[in-house]
Amino acid sequence: MNKTSNKLSDIGELELVDRISNWVPPSNDKIVLGVGDDAAAFRVSADKLALLTSDMLIENIHFDLKYTGAYQLGYKSLAVNLSDIAAMGGIPVYALINIALPSNIGLDFVEDFYKGINALAGEYSVSIIGGDTCSTPDRIMISITVWGGVEADLLLSRKGAQVGDILLVTGVLGESSAGLAILLSDLDRLLYAALINRHIMPAPRYHEARLIAKSKAATSMMDLSDGLASDIKRICKQSQVGADIQLSKLPVSDMLRHVAGQLNRPVYDFAVAGGEDYELLFTIPPDKLADFKSKCATPVSVIGSIKPPEHGIAFIDSKGNNVSFLKGYEHFG
Amino acid sequence: MNKTSNKLSDIGELELVDRISNWVPPSNDKIVLGVGDDAAAFRVSADKLALLTSDMLIENIHFDLKYTGAYQLGYKSLAVNLSDIAAMGGIPVYALINIALPSNIGLDFVEDFYKGINALAGEYSVSIIGGDTCSTPDRIMISITVWGGVEADLLLSRKGAQVGDILLVTGVLGESSAGLAILLSDLDRLLYAALINRHIMPAPRYHEARLIAKSKAATSMMDLSDGLASDIKRICKQSQVGADIQLSKLPVSDMLRHVAGQLNRPVYDFAVAGGEDYELLFTIPPDKLADFKSKCATPVSVIGSIKPPEHGIAFIDSKGNNVSFLKGYEHFG
Repeated sequence: MNKTSNKLSDIGELELVDRISNWVPPSNDKIVLGVGDDAAAFRVSADKLALLTSDMLIENIHFDLKYTGAYQLGYKSLAVNLSDIAAMGGIPVYALINIALPSNIGLDFVEDFYKGINALAGEYSVSIIGGDTCSTPDRIMISITVWGGVEADLLLSRKGAQVGDILLVTGVLGESSAGLAILLSDLDRLLYAALINRHIMPAPRYHEARLIAKSKAATSMMDLSDGLASDIKRICKQSQVGADIQLSKLPVSDMLRHVAGQLNRPVYDFAVAGGEDYELLFTIPPDKLADFKSKCATPVSVIGSIKPPEHGIAFIDSKGNNVSFLKGYEHFG
Repeated sequence: MNKTSNKLSDIGELELVDRISNWVPPSNDKIVLGVGDDAAAFRVSADKLALLTSDMLIENIHFDLKYTGAYQLGYKSLAVNLSDIAAMGGIPVYALINIALPSNIGLDFVEDFYKGINALAGEYSVSIIGGDTCSTPDRIMISITVWGGVEADLLLSRKGAQVGDILLVTGVLGESSAGLAILLSDLDRLLYAALINRHIMPAPRYHEARLIAKSKAATSMMDLSDGLASDIKRICKQSQVGADIQLSKLPVSDMLRHVAGQLNRPVYDFAVAGGEDYELLFTIPPDKLADFKSKCATPVSVIGSIKPPEHGIAFIDSKGNNVSFLKGYEHFG
């Protein structure tokens, strides 16, 4: 088929989501956030919002059974959805599990998948209340929906970042994609199990997100699923701002530096362009930063600042040079 | 791979759903209905329940682009989920649309898909508030989630059918699967467009379901998605009862009889074993039947009655003989 200008591969996911939000305009004044954020939010009472999110995981796109077990797959499938609720400052409550499976799959596999889901669900008091199972001839497809809630005055979204705000992240970046690179390499998996584990069983930053939301200092927040290089575009687009990111300030572990060296790849391949860290990216006005950091009981790093929209998004190296950066994971790329 | 006794293909979907409900036991006293019904129900206030349902549609399993357009596919994908909310007596409110697409798909296709969704969403005042898009190398996968509500005293589920209750259905049966059979045959599609349309754009029986729920006469209800032969098992299992179904009482249109003749197939291949009618199957105590039927503004048919569990499920022909019946659609079959 000839490549023409009206294929998905020509517009990328950001543009597609933009078009979808035009095709399905909000039609109800209880909708606080519709298409385009980590989760949708709608009013259920004067001071409470419900949150609803649903994400797909497709075999050999999002996971490979050579590198994950059924238990880990269940855990991660729920984790990426809990991360979306966390990113709004919310509390996950219920989940639906949809899974399409080839009929030659063993029952043990399915039981282990649910055990992995239960392990994480139990940790965050989430109840599995339904879903759909069906057969498919080939690749496993998972689609999980999580329903949760958030106090109306604590909701955080991709909108709201203001020019002058400070840009922060939780934890360290790049470990998940480095874990995947190790799995795809000849490096000793045992030595780097910590990074591999960040890839196959990522922890949603729920407690960190609630802490940030309750501080009432943050102006915007999202979870880093596709990598900083892709995800910063989402906050900037929704908030209609630009951003400067100081590469030297990105939080990177010694183990990641070591592995990047072993793999002969730049650290920023992982910390900027690598996805699936599920750390939180958020913004805080400069006058609230000192107070926030003094009270914040979780490691956070200042990585840059919000600029006017015409500034665009710039990654700046230690010499002050603007670095043109590899993009993060692009759907339909 | 050798077929062993622990494969999905050996247990079927009913048994799988049973096992899943054991793997993920309800963990919260606000949960009114968990795994195993058309939708999950949980308490959000003293007299209101929230309903949450999510269904998958996979290319070449649930639909074939040779026989449906993008618009019709969008319409049907939402319809099957609205039908699940309707089957609980509920009101659909919000939907999330997940769709995985090959990147060579045209934008026109995606826009038409959303137009089809919007057409049905508009009809029932449902708002599309989010979802997930991603790329997949081959078959399109759709997973739609619908959130709705129902008054606590109007909730209907697959549980609740009592021995002695009368079994009823709305509308006529078998037209959707006959529509599919026409598409797969050499019959003139134009002549039988009404049946084809029931297959590619099924109407959720929302108004009928609300009418049945508000009558407060019904004891159980579900939507017919996999065919009467499969779905009656679900009500019987959840209600722990058996059932007699009188084949001569099944509501069948003249057009279906005609098409069955043209295709040289028994009418009951469609009306009993054929899926995707999305009519409602429900039960009413005999002492409430006359009053219900006198007030019921929509066509319903008595098709049988509820029996003790040890009776099992029997299909009875006009001579009073017990007919061993073709099963409906079986996942993992």
